[in-house]
Amino acid sequence: MYYPEPISKLIDSFTKLPGIGPKTAVRLAFFVLNMKEDDVLDFAKALVSAKRELTHCSVCGHITDQDPCQICTDASRDDSVICVVEDPKDVIAMEKMREFNGRYHVLHGSISPMDGIGPEDINVPDLINRLKDDKVKEIILATNPNVEGEATAMYISRLVKPSGIRITRIAHGLPMGGDLEYADEVTLSKAMEGRREL
Amino acid sequence: MYYPEPISKLIDSFTKLPGIGPKTAVRLAFFVLNMKEDDVLDFAKALVSAKRELTHCSVCGHITDQDPCQICTDASRDDSVICVVEDPKDVIAMEKMREFNGRYHVLHGSISPMDGIGPEDINVPDLINRLKDDKVKEIILATNPNVEGEATAMYISRLVKPSGIRITRIAHGLPMGGDLEYADEVTLSKAMEGRREL
Repeated sequence: MYYPEPISKLIDSFTKLPGIGPKTAVRLAFFVLNMKEDDVLDFAKALVSAKRELTHCSVCGHITDQDPCQICTDASRDDSVICVVEDPKDVIAMEKMREFNGRYHVLHGSISPMDGIGPEDINVPDLINRLKDDKVKEIILATNPNVEGEATAMYISRLVKPSGIRITRIAHGLPMGGDLEYADEVTLSKAMEGRREL
Repeated sequence: MYYPEPISKLIDSFTKLPGIGPKTAVRLAFFVLNMKEDDVLDFAKALVSAKRELTHCSVCGHITDQDPCQICTDASRDDSVICVVEDPKDVIAMEKMREFNGRYHVLHGSISPMDGIGPEDINVPDLINRLKDDKVKEIILATNPNVEGEATAMYISRLVKPSGIRITRIAHGLPMGGDLEYADEVTLSKAMEGRREL
């Protein structure tokens, strides 16, 4: 034995987390030993309750502790726009912006034939259902700007187009604070392509 | 609100760990949501039991879930040698080597006047007590090879010397697999100083 069992179990648990190797796991486990007992108990409770109390919203697919989620039930939000994202974390990124006041739809993935993920494996049918009540006037496709995200955006746009709903894609271009010199060619080409009158 | 409460609490708990910033904490928290429930429960249990069940061995100061610890109670180990280290993690590093078969003594720190840590703040009195029964023939000082570790080693060696017990310090020199070209001057000077006949 190298470690007393309680700590070796804790090290094992930390090692299961992404980006945490054996050395970091040992460091974190020893750090826990020196934490206040209350903080450790809170940590343990938070783990269990995050796992047990959170589900996916039955309307938009966002993670939530109530169903439908707070965003879907918020009467002050605009029903006519749905922003389609790949992941719950993307909803949070959008919410941090504090500018978008419509609804969301979380796909939980993107079309990726290389990984065997087809259109049927992501949360598209629910999106189509949500369009039936004619409230929605615009769908903003905010999938990631990579091959899978583009393919997913293209797929949804073709699917929804016949219904006459306006479909937009978020802009691609140079990130703010970025440096033109260090921008890759694809981004630069998208930035040129998407240029606007001043 | 950005996050449902259960997950924001979990993110807060992760943020308290060393080396984990807000972005990593979010990533880990979302990872936990997708873990198997059993794994999450094991993680939570491991946190609590590591904190509650582990204490410091009353003999050597190593972390343990039984007192005295497994190393101190192991009759097959050599009572005549005590290896003095700064931290329980150092005991584990030594044990991994599988070559040392004596006892340990954990100081839980090193003398560091800059941080206001004097000889009375580390676990030296217990070490002196352990020398009283005349079993101990050698003390190996394996404190870290830095200013604080050297000062601590020097302090203990002066304290113990009058008793006539042999006191040794682990060797300083080039680490195995290292590169002479990239060694710092202090290490190189120590390596020259500690050279041995072949």
